[in-house]
Amino acid sequence: MREIGVGLLGLGNVGAGVVKLLEDNANAIEARLGARVVVRAIAVREPDKKRVVDVDPGLMTTDVKSVIDRDDVEIVCELVGGDTDAREYAMRAIARRKQLVTANKALLAVHGEELFSAAEKAGADVYYEAAVCGGVPIIRALREGLASDRIEAFYGIVNGTSNFIVTEMTENRAAFADVLADAQARGYAEADPTLDVGGGDAAHKLAILASLCFGTGVDVAQMHVEGIDRLDPIDFELAERFGFTIKPLVIGRDHGDSIEARVHPTMIPKRWLLADVPDAKNALYVKSYALGSSMYYGAGAGMMPTAMAVVSDVIEVARNIKAGSTGALPLRSYQRMTHRPLREFDELRNRYYMRFSVLDRSGVLGQLTTVLGDHEISIAQVVQEGPRDPNRPVLVVILTHEAREGNVRHALAQIAKLATVVEPASVIRIMQ
Amino acid sequence: MREIGVGLLGLGNVGAGVVKLLEDNANAIEARLGARVVVRAIAVREPDKKRVVDVDPGLMTTDVKSVIDRDDVEIVCELVGGDTDAREYAMRAIARRKQLVTANKALLAVHGEELFSAAEKAGADVYYEAAVCGGVPIIRALREGLASDRIEAFYGIVNGTSNFIVTEMTENRAAFADVLADAQARGYAEADPTLDVGGGDAAHKLAILASLCFGTGVDVAQMHVEGIDRLDPIDFELAERFGFTIKPLVIGRDHGDSIEARVHPTMIPKRWLLADVPDAKNALYVKSYALGSSMYYGAGAGMMPTAMAVVSDVIEVARNIKAGSTGALPLRSYQRMTHRPLREFDELRNRYYMRFSVLDRSGVLGQLTTVLGDHEISIAQVVQEGPRDPNRPVLVVILTHEAREGNVRHALAQIAKLATVVEPASVIRIMQ
Repeated sequence: MREIGVGLLGLGNVGAGVVKLLEDNANAIEARLGARVVVRAIAVREPDKKRVVDVDPGLMTTDVKSVIDRDDVEIVCELVGGDTDAREYAMRAIARRKQLVTANKALLAVHGEELFSAAEKAGADVYYEAAVCGGVPIIRALREGLASDRIEAFYGIVNGTSNFIVTEMTENRAAFADVLADAQARGYAEADPTLDVGGGDAAHKLAILASLCFGTGVDVAQMHVEGIDRLDPIDFELAERFGFTIKPLVIGRDHGDSIEARVHPTMIPKRWLLADVPDAKNALYVKSYALGSSMYYGAGAGMMPTAMAVVSDVIEVARNIKAGSTGALPLRSYQRMTHRPLREFDELRNRYYMRFSVLDRSGVLGQLTTVLGDHEISIAQVVQEGPRDPNRPVLVVILTHEAREGNVRHALAQIAKLATVVEPASVIRIMQ
Repeated sequence: MREIGVGLLGLGNVGAGVVKLLEDNANAIEARLGARVVVRAIAVREPDKKRVVDVDPGLMTTDVKSVIDRDDVEIVCELVGGDTDAREYAMRAIARRKQLVTANKALLAVHGEELFSAAEKAGADVYYEAAVCGGVPIIRALREGLASDRIEAFYGIVNGTSNFIVTEMTENRAAFADVLADAQARGYAEADPTLDVGGGDAAHKLAILASLCFGTGVDVAQMHVEGIDRLDPIDFELAERFGFTIKPLVIGRDHGDSIEARVHPTMIPKRWLLADVPDAKNALYVKSYALGSSMYYGAGAGMMPTAMAVVSDVIEVARNIKAGSTGALPLRSYQRMTHRPLREFDELRNRYYMRFSVLDRSGVLGQLTTVLGDHEISIAQVVQEGPRDPNRPVLVVILTHEAREGNVRHALAQIAKLATVVEPASVIRIMQ
C-alpha cells in the first residue's frame, strides 16, 4: 500500500494528539484514504522530555530542517507556534514543495499573504483548519461549503479561555480576577493569560477569517482589539436585566469599499444562538447572500479536537497527493486578494451600554445626557439606582440608540472630566 | 478561459436558484475557480412554463437524455426529485462518466449504495451537499472536516416544515392542524404535507447521514419513523414545565455491532443548543471521539440556500475536473460499507414522557403504576391534575427513568385496555 510521509514540527499537546489520533484511527484512515499515513520524523526541542504519548525515540530530532528536507516527508505539520521560527520553517517547507499543514494562527495572521503567495508559486498547498475554532471545520465550511456564496458578515466566539471566563461571570457573577485564577488552576487559561483575555489571540483568528471571507489582507495592528479583562460582575447583572448576554466576539463585515474587523466584548440578545455557546466552546455565526444565517459550533481548543483538525487536513492533503492534484487553487482563498482598507473604528456605528458611577447630586443626569446629546448620541433607556446618601456614588446606566463610535469616544472623554463622575465609565457595545 | 459545461435536469425552485446564483456570482466563481461554469442545457417538462428566473429558451429541452449525453456537459445536476426517473438519469450520467451533483435525498436514501458503487467503478463523483440540511455544509463537515474522527452519534433537526410547526406550537400553544394550515398558506408546507410532518423526508436524510457517519447501508423501511402530527399543545405546555423543549429529531448512534437510526419528536433539555433552533431552520449536533460535540446550523430548505449548496458542489467538482482529480475516493463515504444491522427499535432504551387521560376514580394511578412496574418501567415523576368531577377525565403525566422501548410498548397496550383509561396515551421520548 502507498505510504505518505509526514514530518511533525513540534510535539506539544497538539503534536501528541496528532500522533495518538493517527495511531487510534489508523485502520479507518487507511480505508478511507487507500494509503497509509506514516510519521517519518518529529522535530522537538527536548528529545528526552516526558510526553503524553509514547513515541519511538528514533523518530525524534532537534534538527528541524532535517525533518523538512527528508525526501520521504511529503507533508510538513508545523505545530511549533509563534510567528518567527514558524515562518522560517513554513517558508522552507514551501520552498521544497512540501505540502504544509499548520495550526498556527499567529503565523497566518501576520505572514499569511507572504506564505500563500509563496505556496501558490511553488504549487504547494497550505491547510490550516486547526488555526481557527480548533476542531470545528469552519475553514472548510467557508472555503468549500460556501464557495458559491458571498459572505456579508460574521460574528464569532473564537477564544475558548475568554468564553469560559465570561460564561462563569454570567452564571456566577464572580469577579474577573477570581474566575481567571480558577481557569488557570483548571488548565483553561495559560500562566500568562494576556494573549487570550486581552483579545490578541482572537485578533489573529479574526484576521484569518476576514482574509478568507472577504478576500483582503487585514493588518492585525490596525484592528480595534479589546479584551474581557475590564468586565465587572455588575455589567453581567445589568445585561441580563435588559435581555442581553455578554460574549467575547470577533466581528467582521464587508462594506464593499472597506471591511470591518474588531474584537470586543459585546452584548447580544439572550435568544441568539451565540448567547448559548457555553464554557470554552467556540462558534462562528455567518451571514451570507444565498444561505442567510448559518452557525458552526464546537471545541475551539484542546489536544484531541485540535489534533483532529490537523489530521483531517493531513488526510485531505494525502488524498490530493495520491490523486496528483496538490496545488489546486482553494475555492475561497488568500490568493485572490483585493486590497481594501479597514474601516476606521471611529466611523463604525453601534448601540452602547454605558455604566456611570456618579455623585448623587441634582442635575447630574442632566449633565450626562447633555454631553451625549451634544455628540448626537440619543438615549433609548436610562436606569438610575443606588444609595440615597448624597456622598456615596449612584449607578446610572444608559442604553443608547445607534451612534458613531468616534462621537461616543469624545463624549466619554468629556464626561470623565465632570466633577460629579467618580470613576471611568464602563462601556459595552450592543449588537442586535 | 477554460469552460466547464453543466447540464441541469429540472428547473423548479432549486434549478432556478442555481441559474440565478451562477449568474449573480459569476465573476467571483470565475476568479476562485480559474474557469467559467457554463450551463449548456436544461431539461424541463414544460418549456413554456413561467419561471422565477429568465432563462434562454434555447437552453431548454424536454429530452432529458440529450442533456446528459451532450459531449460538452461534464457535470450533471439532477434536480428532478423522486427516486424512479431520477435514478435512471443519475445512473445514465454515471455510465457516461459525467460528474453528478444531486439534491435528491430520496434517491440517495433508497438507491445510494447502487449509485455510489456504480460511480466508483466509473471513476465519477457524486456530490450531494444539498440533500441534507439544505445549504448547511454538513456533508463536507462530516466527510472531510471530521475525516480523521470517529463519529459516535448525531441528533438532527433536518425537516424545516416540521421544525417550523413545532416552533409555532411551542411558542403559541396552537393546535397542530391550525399551525399546519398557516404553514401551508405561507408556503412553508406542501399541499400534501405527509412526507414532511409524517417523518418520511427526515427518514431519507437520516439514512444518508447514518450511511455517511457509520459507513453502513441503512434500510429506510426498517427504521422507526414517527411524525409530529400527533403532538398536542398540552404536551408543549407540560414539556416546558419539566424543563424540556419538544423537537422533531433524527437520531443516529453507532453501537459497534449494530447501529441505531430513528425519527421521532423528542423532549430535550431547554438548555441544549438544539432546543433553540427556531422556525424552519435545520441543525445537526454531532458527537465524535476526538472533537467531542459540534453543531452545524442554518437554512435547511429554500430556493437560494439549496441552490448555494448545489453550486458549491458544482464548483468543487469543476475544480476537480480542472485538476484532473475527479473520482478520488471521498474521505468518508458510502463506498467503504460495513454491513451492520439496524438495532431493533424495541431493544432501545429511553426515558419517557407519558400523558394519560383517565377517569377520576380511586386506584387509577395504582393501576397505571402497577402495569408500568410489571414491565420494569420505573417512575421518576408523576403529575396529576384535572377537574375533581368523577365523571370527567383527569390528566396523569408520568416521567419514567430509562426503560426498554419494547416493554413500554407492551405496558401501554395493556394500559389502553383499562376501563378507566379514556383515550390512547400520548408518549414522547426524552433525551438528556
